[in-house]
Amino acid sequence: MDYQLSHEGYMRTALELARAAMGQTGLNPIVGCVLVKEGRIVGLGSHLKRGTAHAEVHALRMAGAEAEGSTAYVTLEPCSHYGKTPPCADQLIEAGVKQVYVACEDPNPLVAGQGIQKLRDRGIEVHVGLLQNEAEQLNEKFFKFIRTGMPFVTLKTAMTLDGKVASKQGDSKWISNEEARQRVHVLRHQHQGIMVGAATVLADDPLLTARLESGAVQPTRIIVDSRLRIPLTAKVIQDRTAPTVILTSAAADAAAEERLAACGVKVYRCGTGPKVDLQEAMRKLAELEISSVLLEGGGTLNGAMLEAELIDKMVIFMAPKIIGGVSAPSIFQMEGKALMNEAYTLSSIHYEQIGDNICIIGYPHYGA
Amino acid sequence: MDYQLSHEGYMRTALELARAAMGQTGLNPIVGCVLVKEGRIVGLGSHLKRGTAHAEVHALRMAGAEAEGSTAYVTLEPCSHYGKTPPCADQLIEAGVKQVYVACEDPNPLVAGQGIQKLRDRGIEVHVGLLQNEAEQLNEKFFKFIRTGMPFVTLKTAMTLDGKVASKQGDSKWISNEEARQRVHVLRHQHQGIMVGAATVLADDPLLTARLESGAVQPTRIIVDSRLRIPLTAKVIQDRTAPTVILTSAAADAAAEERLAACGVKVYRCGTGPKVDLQEAMRKLAELEISSVLLEGGGTLNGAMLEAELIDKMVIFMAPKIIGGVSAPSIFQMEGKALMNEAYTLSSIHYEQIGDNICIIGYPHYGA
Repeated sequence: MDYQLSHEGYMRTALELARAAMGQTGLNPIVGCVLVKEGRIVGLGSHLKRGTAHAEVHALRMAGAEAEGSTAYVTLEPCSHYGKTPPCADQLIEAGVKQVYVACEDPNPLVAGQGIQKLRDRGIEVHVGLLQNEAEQLNEKFFKFIRTGMPFVTLKTAMTLDGKVASKQGDSKWISNEEARQRVHVLRHQHQGIMVGAATVLADDPLLTARLESGAVQPTRIIVDSRLRIPLTAKVIQDRTAPTVILTSAAADAAAEERLAACGVKVYRCGTGPKVDLQEAMRKLAELEISSVLLEGGGTLNGAMLEAELIDKMVIFMAPKIIGGVSAPSIFQMEGKALMNEAYTLSSIHYEQIGDNICIIGYPHYGA
Repeated sequence: MDYQLSHEGYMRTALELARAAMGQTGLNPIVGCVLVKEGRIVGLGSHLKRGTAHAEVHALRMAGAEAEGSTAYVTLEPCSHYGKTPPCADQLIEAGVKQVYVACEDPNPLVAGQGIQKLRDRGIEVHVGLLQNEAEQLNEKFFKFIRTGMPFVTLKTAMTLDGKVASKQGDSKWISNEEARQRVHVLRHQHQGIMVGAATVLADDPLLTARLESGAVQPTRIIVDSRLRIPLTAKVIQDRTAPTVILTSAAADAAAEERLAACGVKVYRCGTGPKVDLQEAMRKLAELEISSVLLEGGGTLNGAMLEAELIDKMVIFMAPKIIGGVSAPSIFQMEGKALMNEAYTLSSIHYEQIGDNICIIGYPHYGA
């Protein structure tokens, strides 16, 4: 069976159209749309970039007069409000679409069921919930951001079988295999920011860009540096492929801040303490319209982010290697829990073998 | 396809007959045998217990007169020497078997090709190497022991995602899920000894028996206790379900040894130092006819065994939990390597998902 000719099959196509644009819509959700009339696809659309046409509009344009009497499959509720573009619900109505399948409601308070209501008010048959789980997961970053106003944080790391992210000497080249390392660039493309600590910049001087053979969207580089220790010669300062922002503390040196600003780097002080207040740092990123962050920290930043309950998802590449060393940094350097039944647990766990490495994907729980 | 009617199919049946007896043949290899005549199975056999009939003999008895002119499928070369039973090669010849498929040669220097030669000398057609890899892996414990005179050591442990085997307070109940914990009892049944350190006995007071609903063979409990610290009240001393031996050092207290001996526990001093010499300890176990050991140590014993290059295989159950704590014990507490490319690596890696846990199976490499 090459293709499933059914409501579900068409919705899957719409989900694939959405997925293809993951990482290139900024703050906006990814959305796909398929228009079907008399057993034939007459229009396909995907929202490609914030401020440009929505998925439904692209599909309607492709369909032209054929849109009349068609069935629309949309991965997210059509919008009902005037944003950067006119409401899609209105456009579906005008085009004469007679039936709409919606995978999930738009949690945006400006929509939140009103798009569906508008369609129903005009006599269009609307079915909600087809492949809802898949559609919600696809937009998990957008859903978190729109509901909480905080960026969705994905921890990405490579670790040894014994849970270390470097040797006792700080060596980490390389832990995971080449295919796993290539996946990281896809993850970078799919997030609006990449976050590391100053220790990582000082140890590895990474470029922190998304490097894919077909090109990539460059996320903003975010450096957590409480004391503004990173040098002006660091690649993340010198390289202009992507913007860099630095999150620092109230205690940081004003002259150092000026030097960084002169290099075109924005510096933000988060909280009043000597360390970066990570909650406030995330709020600052949200203000900067960064709705998703790939955390590529060392053990200390990872641990602090977990203890602050700011990590939403983990993507961990584990290699079958044992490095040992009590002082070698663990994936999470933190105070830790006293009892095993107090441990952080990951839910919706998914394991995927990548050569001899394994990729562990899950969502941490933070108690009640 | 329910059953593969082919040379390979019959050899797979022979391998299954062997596998079913894993753990109950002591020092001996596990072996299966299938006799086929005119397209019908006429005999099945498996070696069930050291000192009793070999697989071929059971199969020949089942076949009776039908053995004449039949084809034998044997997972290990038929023996050619008088051990506790007469040579199987002779019995296959006497029964008039006309063709023999052998999965792999017997590395036992008393056999080592002579069984095959004996059959060929009598005009029997012998094919060697059908499903050889499977057959060798099935008897990996026996192969190691017969080739090196040292027991095959399988490390079994449960760890958190961050590589910890307990919390900073020493709590480890429970890390892995119930299905994973049930698998441990199968592993115990399949090894002749279970080894832990004194620290584990002091912390958890485990029973260290194989508990399966259908009953199990009980391995010898082996406690590594350099200073004879474990109390006489420990379950491994009081419980008589299985024998217990203690491996200690030259420095251990003689009176403590006497008290343990009075409880029926054998105490062996390994090496001249204040700590147990693990190489010598393994040789001692071999002398005691323990050819396979399931290492269920804490981080310190695991680390020492790895650094001594004494671990042959690892079976690690990882749970998607994060406990943290710099002082919480890692799966291997040891000095560790300075550089990532010096890390111990596991080969023939196999990952198996068990509910939300993952089982990691591999074989450590020890450099050149």
